[in-house]
Amino acid sequence: MSAPRHAAVEGFATAGGELAVGGVPLSRIAARVGRTPFYAYDRQLVTARVQALRAALPPTVRLHYAIKANPMPALLSHLGRLVDGLDVASGAELRAALDAGGDPAEISFAGPGKSHDELAQAVAAGILVNIESHREIELLHGIGERLGLRPRVAVRVNPPYELKSSGMKMGGGPKPFGIDAEEVPAALASIAARRLGFEGFHVFSGSQNLRAEAICEAQTRGLELAVQLARHAPSPVLSLNLGGGFGIPYFPGEQPLALEVVGAHLAGVASAAAEQLPQAHIVIELGRYIVGEAGIYVCRIIDRKVSRGEVFLVTDGGLHHHLAASGNFGQVIRKNYPVAIAHASSSEARETVSVVGPLCTPLDLLADRMELAAAEVGDLVVVFRSGAYGYSASPHGFLSHPPPLEVLV
Amino acid sequence: MSAPRHAAVEGFATAGGELAVGGVPLSRIAARVGRTPFYAYDRQLVTARVQALRAALPPTVRLHYAIKANPMPALLSHLGRLVDGLDVASGAELRAALDAGGDPAEISFAGPGKSHDELAQAVAAGILVNIESHREIELLHGIGERLGLRPRVAVRVNPPYELKSSGMKMGGGPKPFGIDAEEVPAALASIAARRLGFEGFHVFSGSQNLRAEAICEAQTRGLELAVQLARHAPSPVLSLNLGGGFGIPYFPGEQPLALEVVGAHLAGVASAAAEQLPQAHIVIELGRYIVGEAGIYVCRIIDRKVSRGEVFLVTDGGLHHHLAASGNFGQVIRKNYPVAIAHASSSEARETVSVVGPLCTPLDLLADRMELAAAEVGDLVVVFRSGAYGYSASPHGFLSHPPPLEVLV
Repeated sequence: MSAPRHAAVEGFATAGGELAVGGVPLSRIAARVGRTPFYAYDRQLVTARVQALRAALPPTVRLHYAIKANPMPALLSHLGRLVDGLDVASGAELRAALDAGGDPAEISFAGPGKSHDELAQAVAAGILVNIESHREIELLHGIGERLGLRPRVAVRVNPPYELKSSGMKMGGGPKPFGIDAEEVPAALASIAARRLGFEGFHVFSGSQNLRAEAICEAQTRGLELAVQLARHAPSPVLSLNLGGGFGIPYFPGEQPLALEVVGAHLAGVASAAAEQLPQAHIVIELGRYIVGEAGIYVCRIIDRKVSRGEVFLVTDGGLHHHLAASGNFGQVIRKNYPVAIAHASSSEARETVSVVGPLCTPLDLLADRMELAAAEVGDLVVVFRSGAYGYSASPHGFLSHPPPLEVLV
Repeated sequence: MSAPRHAAVEGFATAGGELAVGGVPLSRIAARVGRTPFYAYDRQLVTARVQALRAALPPTVRLHYAIKANPMPALLSHLGRLVDGLDVASGAELRAALDAGGDPAEISFAGPGKSHDELAQAVAAGILVNIESHREIELLHGIGERLGLRPRVAVRVNPPYELKSSGMKMGGGPKPFGIDAEEVPAALASIAARRLGFEGFHVFSGSQNLRAEAICEAQTRGLELAVQLARHAPSPVLSLNLGGGFGIPYFPGEQPLALEVVGAHLAGVASAAAEQLPQAHIVIELGRYIVGEAGIYVCRIIDRKVSRGEVFLVTDGGLHHHLAASGNFGQVIRKNYPVAIAHASSSEARETVSVVGPLCTPLDLLADRMELAAAEVGDLVVVFRSGAYGYSASPHGFLSHPPPLEVLV
């Protein structure tokens, strides 16, 4: 039995014996960026992923991008033209969504700890607020009165079930996210009494799920829950956000999500919704799935050390730039991201190496004893599947090295 | 049998029924800072810790501060007057050390991936470089020739043994840190041939160790190793950096390090060193131990939610400001830092709550079902033992919320 392998990395061609992004060899991109390390995102791969989603999902479903996965402004501007809406998780993300040309009618805001000022921003912008607590109802009421605007709201529901196989469970049991399903009727009454503009529900049960059946089941149950709760709503449901949770394969042994299975099932959910909630459009909200595989992290080997028989490629990048790849972001047991040497050695020689960064800590590890093409000082190391929760989710200030750069190719 | 408890938090008094830092009630500090969340460091506690170290350690030992634990400029200026030297881990830390008034004669630079430019900075500044690879010897030689300066160097040694009970092992076995002990004679010959200014050794085997015996053993073995290697040195050893590794108790059941045991043992090591390496001074390099317990992280409760019987205090701070307290920085199993409500409730009522942040992820957890004083919206939550690897080691950009502030009181 062979060891588990990484799922194939697709979309990155080679040019001149070297990995390319958008057809441009990586060494040329590095020269254009000006220095390493950097993140590079492939515009065409993002577009292709959205097209694949459009092809697989029923045409009536609206596709939203969750900015938190990657808020790079140029990427947002690109995505803003491809998707039907943007989802934000902070006041600054809201500003970025509007700057990117997002239509306020199709921007929504979720998050368990929205501040008063953030809620006021949302009302002033005319976006949809996913309400997560009774407090937000009260605050939005006051803000609406003060601004002379009717806040647009949906209720984020903490469902009574968990999404199976989810990388991160965000619904079911006691949770800080959303309002418990059994409390939603009271929240709806409160929304009606305070004359907020009710538009629908947001039911999101987890993220980074690679099992199509689990996602399908969550969508079915999400619709069922919304139909039940709609009986208590002050007005018809216009929007039903079923979340996302579509995972991508990071680690050895993981397989890509069967998107066509999810799409076919969602067509049935959409048909049922058309009957049961006739005025509602269904929203699928994806972040990682849209951008995660379109991005790479690139750093340069600055030393090659052999310590007691093991080879260490010491790079100018590391944990401070890419926390998730170091294994310190939600992983219980550290596993390697897919990593490669950009300059495939002409000799095709391979060796087992560890890729580390410049930090004085054993946590600063990008690849732990992986078999890679033989490499030397000056070569570029690539960490794949780095388009989501990479740049923005890393502690750039740790040890005061320069931050990474970002480029959209 | 009762559950393990956190070691007592010492040094933070109460004033007016409220936690105080430097004698100032926390609500007043919050008003002075201007907003929450923030880190507050107590100047007097830092001073007291250095005094405790001076009292416990033999007088001939030089005490260095490792800036990476907390590089806040005001704190560095304060510490620069208290300790004998500063240790840096990047070019930016070197600039900060010099800005703080550090004497270049007593600044040293360690790190497995120093860039050419960083090495040139070090030579130009006249500080001591802890050499970690053969490549650095070559680079320093070229830089010295070019600048017309003799680089000051010590050899960082990867010892042939591991430090027992260390939170993070940084020596023994194959490691990216330092030069394997068995390779050091060749490195010393190379240093001599290139006429670098040899000054000594740096032997550091691990960090965050709470067992005095393990630290004592590492110090004994560090000296033995240095004495052996000194036979191959081109000139007498002037400096022997035995690292630090002194831990602080973060989690329930952990006990403070028996500093007096380490100090008494180190007196013997220092006596032996005076005979065996008569020109050498011994350096102990500490970061976390000096500042970790002098700092707190403070955030404000913005919502109080009850979900299926569990209470969640939703704050304006979280993982993006304090990654380590969320359990995502080197912990395998998440444990709670010591956390408290600053405003002790007058009723003394207590309840079991989870403290979460505003991020849309279940990772954003500062306290998992802890018994705290009953609290309400507006109250301040304090995470103790946050003076080291807090602010600078956190992903401030994650979800684009404002960064925390820092204040030295």
